[in-house]
Amino acid sequence: MTYSVAVSGASGYAGGEILRILAAHPDVEIRTVTAHSNAGQPLIQHQPHLRSLAHLALQETTPEVLAGHDIVFLALPHGQSGQYTEALANTPLVIDAGADHRLESAADWDRFYGGVFHQPWVYGVPELLVDGIKQRQRLVGASRIAAPGCNASTVSLSLAPGVAAGVIDTSDIVTVLAVGPSGAGKSLKTNLLGAEILGTANPYAVGGTHRHIPEIRQALAAAARASENSSNVGGFGAHPPTKTDSSDVPHADESIRISFTPVLVPMSRGILATSTAPITSGATDAEIRQAWESAYADETFVQLLPEGQFPRTADVLGANTALIGLAIDRAAGRVVVIAAVDNLVKGTAGAAIQSMNLALGLAEGTALTVNGVAP
Amino acid sequence: MTYSVAVSGASGYAGGEILRILAAHPDVEIRTVTAHSNAGQPLIQHQPHLRSLAHLALQETTPEVLAGHDIVFLALPHGQSGQYTEALANTPLVIDAGADHRLESAADWDRFYGGVFHQPWVYGVPELLVDGIKQRQRLVGASRIAAPGCNASTVSLSLAPGVAAGVIDTSDIVTVLAVGPSGAGKSLKTNLLGAEILGTANPYAVGGTHRHIPEIRQALAAAARASENSSNVGGFGAHPPTKTDSSDVPHADESIRISFTPVLVPMSRGILATSTAPITSGATDAEIRQAWESAYADETFVQLLPEGQFPRTADVLGANTALIGLAIDRAAGRVVVIAAVDNLVKGTAGAAIQSMNLALGLAEGTALTVNGVAP
Amino acid sequence: MTYSVAVSGASGYAGGEILRILAAHPDVEIRTVTAHSNAGQPLIQHQPHLRSLAHLALQETTPEVLAGHDIVFLALPHGQSGQYTEALANTPLVIDAGADHRLESAADWDRFYGGVFHQPWVYGVPELLVDGIKQRQRLVGASRIAAPGCNASTVSLSLAPGVAAGVIDTSDIVTVLAVGPSGAGKSLKTNLLGAEILGTANPYAVGGTHRHIPEIRQALAAAARASENSSNVGGFGAHPPTKTDSSDVPHADESIRISFTPVLVPMSRGILATSTAPITSGATDAEIRQAWESAYADETFVQLLPEGQFPRTADVLGANTALIGLAIDRAAGRVVVIAAVDNLVKGTAGAAIQSMNLALGLAEGTALTVNGVAP
Amino acid sequence: MTYSVAVSGASGYAGGEILRILAAHPDVEIRTVTAHSNAGQPLIQHQPHLRSLAHLALQETTPEVLAGHDIVFLALPHGQSGQYTEALANTPLVIDAGADHRLESAADWDRFYGGVFHQPWVYGVPELLVDGIKQRQRLVGASRIAAPGCNASTVSLSLAPGVAAGVIDTSDIVTVLAVGPSGAGKSLKTNLLGAEILGTANPYAVGGTHRHIPEIRQALAAAARASENSSNVGGFGAHPPTKTDSSDVPHADESIRISFTPVLVPMSRGILATSTAPITSGATDAEIRQAWESAYADETFVQLLPEGQFPRTADVLGANTALIGLAIDRAAGRVVVIAAVDNLVKGTAGAAIQSMNLALGLAEGTALTVNGVAP
Repeated sequence: MTYSVAVSGASGYAGGEILRILAAHPDVEIRTVTAHSNAGQPLIQHQPHLRSLAHLALQETTPEVLAGHDIVFLALPHGQSGQYTEALANTPLVIDAGADHRLESAADWDRFYGGVFHQPWVYGVPELLVDGIKQRQRLVGASRIAAPGCNASTVSLSLAPGVAAGVIDTSDIVTVLAVGPSGAGKSLKTNLLGAEILGTANPYAVGGTHRHIPEIRQALAAAARASENSSNVGGFGAHPPTKTDSSDVPHADESIRISFTPVLVPMSRGILATSTAPITSGATDAEIRQAWESAYADETFVQLLPEGQFPRTADVLGANTALIGLAIDRAAGRVVVIAAVDNLVKGTAGAAIQSMNLALGLAEGTALTVNGVAP
Repeated sequence: MTYSVAVSGASGYAGGEILRILAAHPDVEIRTVTAHSNAGQPLIQHQPHLRSLAHLALQETTPEVLAGHDIVFLALPHGQSGQYTEALANTPLVIDAGADHRLESAADWDRFYGGVFHQPWVYGVPELLVDGIKQRQRLVGASRIAAPGCNASTVSLSLAPGVAAGVIDTSDIVTVLAVGPSGAGKSLKTNLLGAEILGTANPYAVGGTHRHIPEIRQALAAAARASENSSNVGGFGAHPPTKTDSSDVPHADESIRISFTPVLVPMSRGILATSTAPITSGATDAEIRQAWESAYADETFVQLLPEGQFPRTADVLGANTALIGLAIDRAAGRVVVIAAVDNLVKGTAGAAIQSMNLALGLAEGTALTVNGVAP
Repeated sequence: MTYSVAVSGASGYAGGEILRILAAHPDVEIRTVTAHSNAGQPLIQHQPHLRSLAHLALQETTPEVLAGHDIVFLALPHGQSGQYTEALANTPLVIDAGADHRLESAADWDRFYGGVFHQPWVYGVPELLVDGIKQRQRLVGASRIAAPGCNASTVSLSLAPGVAAGVIDTSDIVTVLAVGPSGAGKSLKTNLLGAEILGTANPYAVGGTHRHIPEIRQALAAAARASENSSNVGGFGAHPPTKTDSSDVPHADESIRISFTPVLVPMSRGILATSTAPITSGATDAEIRQAWESAYADETFVQLLPEGQFPRTADVLGANTALIGLAIDRAAGRVVVIAAVDNLVKGTAGAAIQSMNLALGLAEGTALTVNGVAP
Repeated sequence: MTYSVAVSGASGYAGGEILRILAAHPDVEIRTVTAHSNAGQPLIQHQPHLRSLAHLALQETTPEVLAGHDIVFLALPHGQSGQYTEALANTPLVIDAGADHRLESAADWDRFYGGVFHQPWVYGVPELLVDGIKQRQRLVGASRIAAPGCNASTVSLSLAPGVAAGVIDTSDIVTVLAVGPSGAGKSLKTNLLGAEILGTANPYAVGGTHRHIPEIRQALAAAARASENSSNVGGFGAHPPTKTDSSDVPHADESIRISFTPVLVPMSRGILATSTAPITSGATDAEIRQAWESAYADETFVQLLPEGQFPRTADVLGANTALIGLAIDRAAGRVVVIAAVDNLVKGTAGAAIQSMNLALGLAEGTALTVNGVAP
């Protein structure tokens, strides 16, 4: 069977990457691509690298245009996905690459995003430990999926094994990320100009204001839970949660605290996240390493490197792979976890399509590559 | 008076930057430039940007060639400066850009460098708070100066005000740095090739192994001391320390612990250091900010940015300026300090020449610029 | 049927890219990877992005190790492939990514390379017009293939249509190329260090000394020939040429002259070649454009952009595509052709595997993508 | 005497660079900085690298604000300088970094810019050979100066010596330039975003449409003239030209034809221009080289490199130096001239201030450096 697909936000970076991966997917037909201000123009004018899709033209992003497909990808600015929810009620599978359906806590949404809160969908990070099991199980057969924030999933995958195993202390996490500017999208802002990005490292959202912070805290809280029914109220459940008074849904566990600083560096793509957390008293080196090894031993797209090795973002460019290196610094009393991810692939579009494959019952890695394009 | 100068290691990056700055210095004459494997060749073959020094030829680095100048700069690989100490006994001012005379602790030297331990010289970071006073005072009239490690001085300047004021806890510092590859010198290593550096972020020396760690701990321990006699035993003293049994010199205070991770990013120069430390219980926001403001209010080359502003490395390219941004993240319980430095200027050559100016009684900023070359 | 493959030079950039593409090829099994100084080590230590090949170890590059496979790729330094020719006499298909079997003229080999001259093999650029027909026809069923030089094939594909149609004058071609440093391989040279490449444009091989010049002249001479028997003596023939006294083989037509200047720029991959040639007297704009349109209308991997559009190297990153933009500058009296190619894919490894597919009778585009990885 | 200065366009790249250089100039006081949309804001908000100018606030760009200074720099978008001409009639020295007063030909202005044509001012390239003498002589005491286009002056300085000496043929020049995006200013355009610039080479203004083409043709026509009265009608004269019917002013000599292609590459600053021209019949290698040697032997800021050496843009970063390498390619029948310039310094702001120094009778190199910031 071939699934018909519509991709909104197709002139942007996330939409473009969804299309690049889908173009090589044997089970889908890209039928519709939509955009906002660029509607009416050829897709290739905005995505000149997508040579095999030169026949497609951008249509207006409207509920009517998006309806009627087997699968719809929403790659819209945060806060805009919600308006399509009802119109797409009959669409078998909707995957949101925006933030609208990621957070369980309305209070977090209000504080970090604002605007109308929407119920969380199934979170699209298959390898994440949630309530004692891999999130993969909830994605099989899912109909509404929230692709993760690129920085958020990178950090969550970095630390979840240690959190779940109880070998690190979640109350004082520090993460600093080197990130490429494609993560900021095609926004026309002076600080994103080439001349402002080349040859310099630029911090932003310093001091606890980045929007991915509540998403990380939510994911690590879930990793900390052994196995519970609490999953029914959150985005990790297999089915859309029942409508609840959002004020009843608690913040992510207050015991999870993270200092989070992203730094723009001159590479178009990539996230290199350095995450550290205090070692739990009594945890041995072997126990610590074992936590990560057992979590990812069977995973294709999340790989723990051998001791003493650490990843580079070049090694995952264009790939759906998260590479993780782990050091135990006893002098500092901390675990150091370094993760390399392509923000547009494993961080966004690849996660979305990996989740799609699971939802549809296809081979999980269809159209996704584990090998990066380097050098 | 014009001082005669010899610069060793003149074909390398640190040596080249010392020469670039000295070329604009009205009080010195660059008489001699030396190198190892490139001796006999024109300087400009290795430093094609130093057009005004096209008349100089590289000589062998030997004690005889270096002797007889008013000032000698040593820009040699770590462990090589010591052999020139005796031969230069009569040289009025020797400034070492290498690590040989930075550390007070022979045990630290053994662990992080190895080889013969040398007594520390006066540490060349004028703005650093050491034993309750600025290090500047010890540099006036100094005859032996150790220029700092670029990452070390960046982190020390970032945190010393908070340490001295007691508003941050030094037992759990976390620093992650985005650094350019010029910091690694002209070493011919595969991982430093352009194709390996472009478009990617590469961590190195992960897990507590970087050589600048003991230097930071030493500096922050000194910043923590209110005012003492202990300074007599260390590299911060105004005069070369008396010879002591090095085993008597303690490690830097064990209460100072730092998780330190450098990440190579694709910019030729620059350090963007993100340093975080827990806020001391009871410290108010005003007290915290005041600590940095009072430390640097009168400084030209270390500047605290207004609240909410953070620096970019581009803003200090070619300049002797350290720009510092400070955030107080109450949710994470941490202070976040971001410092931007040109590793070759304020991190090395500029610090050396600023110290030279102080030693000679010249205006401290002679030949140094506060303005970066941007974009 | 699955073909067994050996790749020599597997720790280098060209070898790595051959492996990256072959790893996704359904009809081959990568059985053997070899290297010189790195023999005995895991492949992934040198190619950490090739996650799916983590099980392979590098063996010595010897005739014995390479023999016994269905296909052997030679990705060795220039001048080293020839020594394996005899030992691989029984190997059904050998593809050389080096220069040893590209040139028809022993005199050109002597002047630009030196050392032992080897007879040319079938030149691996399927879309090139040679003696009136596409080179593709000679690659079908070929047993010995010379993959092209990356700059050479880029320029040849840029100009061959105009040469074949007689609308441009080949006696005064000027080409300037912006190229990434991966084209220079993993050689440990100071001028290839990251700090020397970042933030700067560096010309090299200026003034007619680049080794790809005779290869371009040979290809354009072949494009200029309408249809001849002369093809029997050269590298474009379907079968290995008969042994001739190399002194009898003439230089490429002296009527083809090219000023060729490559400039290293700070991108890891990519060639952007700007080639200009005088317009033949009387050629109309329509005739000129038609020359390129008809040459590439049916090609998948060489695409002429619509009038007024010009390619970027980002659009072909990781792809086997050559994108070509054409301008007719009547004020200057010249055609300007801009071609974007990934030097490691369409420039080397992709060309090799596209040729392999043709030689084996497989679908020409197997394992090759037309879509670039951008941004 | 200290000259009071106003700089308009002070929040842009050209204005910022004028300020960076003037900040180190001992004879000027930067009294006024103006901008358009950013008026009212601190200068340092837009130029965070200009630490020594942190006390300045941006005012509106109006004739009233600019009037009353000794020197006014106009760093405005093309076409906007003219409106200030009358209001600044009493200003002793006005220097325009825009294009409005560069071209002698109203027809060229109409074709490449459009809008109101303004009479040319004295062209600010001191080292250029114009009508047999260096342009420097016309700048001494000048009151109205047109700073050059960055690409234009780079190419003109590259070729003028050969043109003046008659050793190259001007009818078939080909120039291809690798340029950094700062040359395009702070315009908010998608193609200038960091993610679009990093890791890629992007051609623009292909096929004879770039605005610097008529400026180059004008300069080379002037270089070709031995010594004439024609200088009276053009921008090279020492005094503002008399008002003429612009239709009487001819185009630049039609015998000068240039194919001109700029390529954006991922470096924030810099121009590397590769210019080639046919060798005049009979010109010997010695005569050719002598043309450039004699032209620049006494120049500080334009330097010919020794035979076989070619410049990199890194070597002139932040410097007012144009470095030139010359090759004679007899096989191609062309001279190849490679010039490296910092587009914001020698290409714009440095040229403006060098011209200012000459106009005021100051030492020509005041505040300008010949040494680049590398690596």
